[in-house]
Amino acid sequence: MPRIEFHARRTIEQVEEGTQLAPRFGEDGLIPCVTTDASTGHVLMLGWMDADALRLTLETREAHYFSRSRQALWRKGATSGLVQRVIDAWIDDDQDALWLRVEVAGSGASCHVGYRSCFYRAVPTGAEAGRALRFTESELVFDPVTVYGDAPNPTQL
Amino acid sequence: MPRIEFHARRTIEQVEEGTQLAPRFGEDGLIPCVTTDASTGHVLMLGWMDADALRLTLETREAHYFSRSRQALWRKGATSGLVQRVIDAWIDDDQDALWLRVEVAGSGASCHVGYRSCFYRAVPTGAEAGRALRFTESELVFDPVTVYGDAPNPTQL
Repeated sequence: MPRIEFHARRTIEQVEEGTQLAPRFGEDGLIPCVTTDASTGHVLMLGWMDADALRLTLETREAHYFSRSRQALWRKGATSGLVQRVIDAWIDDDQDALWLRVEVAGSGASCHVGYRSCFYRAVPTGAEAGRALRFTESELVFDPVTVYGDAPNPTQL
Repeated sequence: MPRIEFHARRTIEQVEEGTQLAPRFGEDGLIPCVTTDASTGHVLMLGWMDADALRLTLETREAHYFSRSRQALWRKGATSGLVQRVIDAWIDDDQDALWLRVEVAGSGASCHVGYRSCFYRAVPTGAEAGRALRFTESELVFDPVTVYGDAPNPTQL
């Protein structure tokens, strides 16, 4: 399999209207990635990738991210078995964001808390703005303690 | 309308399992926001919000962002008329990412290049990895020169 080449970013026209993959990684070397469930369209998570994670994702069709809390390459599902199989991948106009549509293996969860999506709470808007967040997934899809044991929680305060 | 209060982040349980809005803004004061079309489920853009943009979005139900290229608050559609009306808003497990589902006014476009979505190019994967990006929106929804005139292109190389 050819190792994917990322092109240098030379002009706005090349980046926006061209067919060369020229991703813009931030100062931390990372690019954000929106991951949605290909069947429901739900946003599952917003992850981050370094160049290796992006190459591995595109080559293997399994989502890889860079864990900012662990500062390490992270094959999604390596611990939990909840692998994300890539249906298709997209890049945005200025090539500083990615979008993956995936199928999730096993119980179909993508969130370390145990929910299907990381976005399990609605934020009230308009006349309701400022009120309490509203939970919309009533049951955990898996038990994080069983799956992750005593691994440290990745959430940073 | 009450001014929305953001809570301090005290514990992982509060942030992940609580009902208080306690967003985590990065060192640059910004939080990423995934915006999808509420009717099609397509990801339209990945934007960034500062605290004011988030408050205004939740209170007015019109998407506001912080333009990193202009370093200014940005009411989406102020120039183009392509306002994003918020159907619902979501926050993720560790409250460092937002998701808006929106309806787009006018021609329905959300991308400054003139396409419906900023994600108008597929990135080949698997055996096709490394090949040219594939355009999937064949026609511009609006003419950026007519809409934006000679305003500087926001894309940063």
